Amino acid sequence: MKPLNPAFAVELRTSFSEQTVMTLIGARLSKVEAGHVEIELPYRTDLTQQYGYLHAGIVTTIADSACGYAAYTLMPPHSQVLSVEFKVNLLRPAKGDLFRAQADVIKAGKTLTVVRADVTATSSDDEPTLVATMLATIICLRQE
Amino acid sequence: MKPLNPAFAVELRTSFSEQTVMTLIGARLSKVEAGHVEIELPYRTDLTQQYGYLHAGIVTTIADSACGYAAYTLMPPHSQVLSVEFKVNLLRPAKGDLFRAQADVIKAGKTLTVVRADVTATSSDDEPTLVATMLATIICLRQE
Amino acid sequence: MKPLNPAFAVELRTSFSEQTVMTLIGARLSKVEAGHVEIELPYRTDLTQQYGYLHAGIVTTIADSACGYAAYTLMPPHSQVLSVEFKVNLLRPAKGDLFRAQADVIKAGKTLTVVRADVTATSSDDEPTLVATMLATIICLRQE
Amino acid sequence: MKPLNPAFAVELRTSFSEQTVMTLIGARLSKVEAGHVEIELPYRTDLTQQYGYLHAGIVTTIADSACGYAAYTLMPPHSQVLSVEFKVNLLRPAKGDLFRAQADVIKAGKTLTVVRADVTATSSDDEPTLVATMLATIICLRQE
Repeated sequence: MKPLNPAFAVELRTSFSEQTVMTLIGARLSKVEAGHVEIELPYRTDLTQQYGYLHAGIVTTIADSACGYAAYTLMPPHSQVLSVEFKVNLLRPAKGDLFRAQADVIKAGKTLTVVRADVTATSSDDEPTLVATMLATIICLRQE
Repeated sequence: MKPLNPAFAVELRTSFSEQTVMTLIGARLSKVEAGHVEIELPYRTDLTQQYGYLHAGIVTTIADSACGYAAYTLMPPHSQVLSVEFKVNLLRPAKGDLFRAQADVIKAGKTLTVVRADVTATSSDDEPTLVATMLATIICLRQE
Repeated sequence: MKPLNPAFAVELRTSFSEQTVMTLIGARLSKVEAGHVEIELPYRTDLTQQYGYLHAGIVTTIADSACGYAAYTLMPPHSQVLSVEFKVNLLRPAKGDLFRAQADVIKAGKTLTVVRADVTATSSDDEPTLVATMLATIICLRQE
Repeated sequence: MKPLNPAFAVELRTSFSEQTVMTLIGARLSKVEAGHVEIELPYRTDLTQQYGYLHAGIVTTIADSACGYAAYTLMPPHSQVLSVEFKVNLLRPAKGDLFRAQADVIKAGKTLTVVRADVTATSSDDEPTLVATMLATIICLRQE
């Protein structure tokens, strides 16, 4: 997968910094490559559902941004990305110290790009555990 | 749809108050009925994606909780609810002053319940606009 | 929802007759209105899964065509419709004498249209039972 | 992933032979391993949508059975499998001589199993092309 926009990484980082919700929840962009983006989120007690696990909506927040930006890496200059839809399967309770959403483009198209993201949880020295998987459709709009 | 747990509304409100992320984002439970739950969220500039609209993950956060709790209203006492999976279609940019997720149970089952939620946005005196729709599968576990 | 193509109903029926799989399984177009399409399928023993119920893929076949054509009714002349993606929840075993997929456009767009379809099953004199629900994204391409 | 039912392959083949729709469309079981199942379908002109491509519902039919049976390979004896829900992204027009659905279990659970299936199309001597991907939730019921 070849990037069409040589400045994609710089522009993506600027765009990420404008997603104010990422600052609110404490998420950071941890990897940016053509067709692949990772976002990390340390656990916080103010991000949970009623049993103390990370809320599925917050799992979705980092997975959705990872998917949108993974699509962005393969788009031409002056593109805007918007999520059309996504499906998330929550595979295990989202407990752990660090969550990581890893998104990979499955099919890049002119208008629509399909992206998959896995979200893992890591606790202390354990191996990461898969807690959720997303399948998303992203649309590319040309900026005026 | 008949509630099996006469205390469902009280228990649900307690559970909602334990979802710490709801306090973080400023969401409130605005309606609780058998098979139907609504959650409201006023717009805030720290909840957005890069264009200033409510982030799809935050739209999902209120829709997911509304779906889980709508399922909860029809479950027997001592039940736990967990989201198995959901799909969200983002129909329009999530802009507005107030967002409302309205969830309705489509099919209540002993183990699995299927719920639909619509999320609307309202600006000043305008009519609410549909910005997203969720279709979710919720599992009921018996608490020990 | 206003149709943009005055000939939509005639063109849709021609298109349906070119879906060879509809003849194979015995499905028929039973209603065509702006934003709404219905397809019926009588039960047959050669359309089942291992327990004798209608196979989920056949339930999907009529729901998907109903969704695509419901989107088509609101598109401009010379449009092609293709399914981008869909999600189906199978709510009850698909048993009955007659199945009916009823699709309604939720949001019509220039490029993408989101459609919901419910599939019911009817046995003898009973009321129809909801056996599945689909949420689909349809793309509109201009024919050359 | 360890099979819990030593007879899974034999039972699965018997069950597949009872899916009458597989005979109707000409699909065959081409691989059965613990956690992995493949189904093949040669193209036929009576399985198409209006442009002559394999209908999305037929793509779904082989993907859904592959997912259900992949889940079955890891279930205990006397289990029944039913699809709870699935989402399908249609990535490219389903054209080719041979279609193959390849399903892999992502997470096996006592009650729910999550499975992914990719569907490829092959034409003459070309490499297989990915035409669709499914993400499915399967439920395991104990047979009486």
